[in-house]
Amino acid sequence: MPETSSTAAAALMPSVTAAQAAVEQELVDTVVASFDNTEDPRLKDLMQSLTRHLHNFIREVRLTEEEWNAGIAFLTAAGHITDENRQEFILLSDVLGASMQTIAVNNQTHKTATEATVFGPFFVNDAPGIPVGGDIAGDAAGQPCWVEGTVTDTEGKPVPGARIEVWEADEDGFYDVQYTDNRVAGRAHLFADQDGKYAFWGLTPTPYPIPHDGPVGRLLEATHRSPVRASHLHFMVTAKGLRTLVTHIFVEGDPQIDIGDSVFGVKESLIKRFEPQAAGTPAPGGRNLEGQEWARVRFDIVLAPATS
Amino acid sequence: MPETSSTAAAALMPSVTAAQAAVEQELVDTVVASFDNTEDPRLKDLMQSLTRHLHNFIREVRLTEEEWNAGIAFLTAAGHITDENRQEFILLSDVLGASMQTIAVNNQTHKTATEATVFGPFFVNDAPGIPVGGDIAGDAAGQPCWVEGTVTDTEGKPVPGARIEVWEADEDGFYDVQYTDNRVAGRAHLFADQDGKYAFWGLTPTPYPIPHDGPVGRLLEATHRSPVRASHLHFMVTAKGLRTLVTHIFVEGDPQIDIGDSVFGVKESLIKRFEPQAAGTPAPGGRNLEGQEWARVRFDIVLAPATS
Repeated sequence: MPETSSTAAAALMPSVTAAQAAVEQELVDTVVASFDNTEDPRLKDLMQSLTRHLHNFIREVRLTEEEWNAGIAFLTAAGHITDENRQEFILLSDVLGASMQTIAVNNQTHKTATEATVFGPFFVNDAPGIPVGGDIAGDAAGQPCWVEGTVTDTEGKPVPGARIEVWEADEDGFYDVQYTDNRVAGRAHLFADQDGKYAFWGLTPTPYPIPHDGPVGRLLEATHRSPVRASHLHFMVTAKGLRTLVTHIFVEGDPQIDIGDSVFGVKESLIKRFEPQAAGTPAPGGRNLEGQEWARVRFDIVLAPATS
Repeated sequence: MPETSSTAAAALMPSVTAAQAAVEQELVDTVVASFDNTEDPRLKDLMQSLTRHLHNFIREVRLTEEEWNAGIAFLTAAGHITDENRQEFILLSDVLGASMQTIAVNNQTHKTATEATVFGPFFVNDAPGIPVGGDIAGDAAGQPCWVEGTVTDTEGKPVPGARIEVWEADEDGFYDVQYTDNRVAGRAHLFADQDGKYAFWGLTPTPYPIPHDGPVGRLLEATHRSPVRASHLHFMVTAKGLRTLVTHIFVEGDPQIDIGDSVFGVKESLIKRFEPQAAGTPAPGGRNLEGQEWARVRFDIVLAPATS
């Protein structure tokens, strides 16, 4: 999006004289020009664009020095709470929708391909492998849920051998890596069969808040926003020649979808019907659920070409 | 400055289809709407404007996920180097010109009033008082410099009793507070006399780099920018009914002015001629300079009305 000229800026900031707008625009131009000698053309573009948008924000809102101080204090507090186990800058990016916008920019809509959503901080690289129909939940607490579907390309051709990583929180809202006992639960990988079909036992997803005891939590509170994420189950699907898909499925009827997912991950196409199954309903694979209620959901995955 | 519509956005991002631009714009709209319930109307405006500008930056540059990761890593490193003695986020704001733009927005040009510039991190509240004609340098090393002028309002009326805070680095480029021995040197306050006149002995300013051994220094290096500040002497001038002035004077002929002040503080009107005085030239107040060369500079200060 282009930058407005100083004349246009003056017209759009009615409290500002043309002379003042010119002073402000001259400063923007000077800062932009200071990056002219950057050898890496991409870095140069990034810094010059960042400069223009940052200055336009300051000019548009007529940022006060007190507000500037509050901004510095916010970033400082975010820096100080961040460590190997807590990443407040990612949370900040998430709650401003910047993470989701980056996903959107890098995973453009392509025909019928399944939409992408946020990756989140809880993926781990070496999750255990399970066979099709196996169990990812392990000891994680929650309602059993049968998940099944087919992986195809946008021409409808099955993708045998597609690698499917799945991970999710337990019913208390915690991923295994958030516990201190090194447990591995609620995560696994499996491969689609020769017809592109996959299935596994997991848990019916439940809502949980993002960490909100830091500066980002205080921002959400000050703006009357919920820190809660809509209930979801994570997927990452990879296959040769096809675009890697990072996504979730969400639970139809979850009230948090209307309240608002705190990181803006929900897309209409990713909301799925989790069919409740009464206790005693025979379960796939003849699994003995010991009289528990369970759920089942179908999620057919369509991968875009790698070059799209 | 207004946000472009999704149609305009598509026209301006030629690699993006209208459908894709609509998806991206819908996300922006959703994030903006998430702040609708903010009670404080100013906070609401700030967050909604920040959201729009941040998303427009991401969309305009088509930020990659790798670049997003680099941004998170940069902020994390800035947070971790920041402590009571080091403020990397202020440095970041400074080198992006954001500090100077905030000053510009809050100190609009007003008739003949002296222009403002960056405050910097080295002011202290309880600097010693000196009489008119006294010495602010103390034990700080450098060439003696006589500074004099008159404080008036924009009608040319003298401002008796105006409080003038002055502070500066020594010839090694360090402010007193950067040493660990609790020295007080190169700073003081004085009051203009009944005719609005002031004068003091200080040091001829010399250039010095901002701290550049952290992420901001690496950014400057990657973009071939100098970390050096143009030589300057800080002023803060306060008087009842008049706008507080925070500014510097710069040294005419300092090559760093052309290379570029690393924090964009230079304004043409603040560049002053420091007249070199040969050794032995009689000094104001009959000061014995023991055969040293010295300099003198005139800086007449014009304060805007408080309400301007």
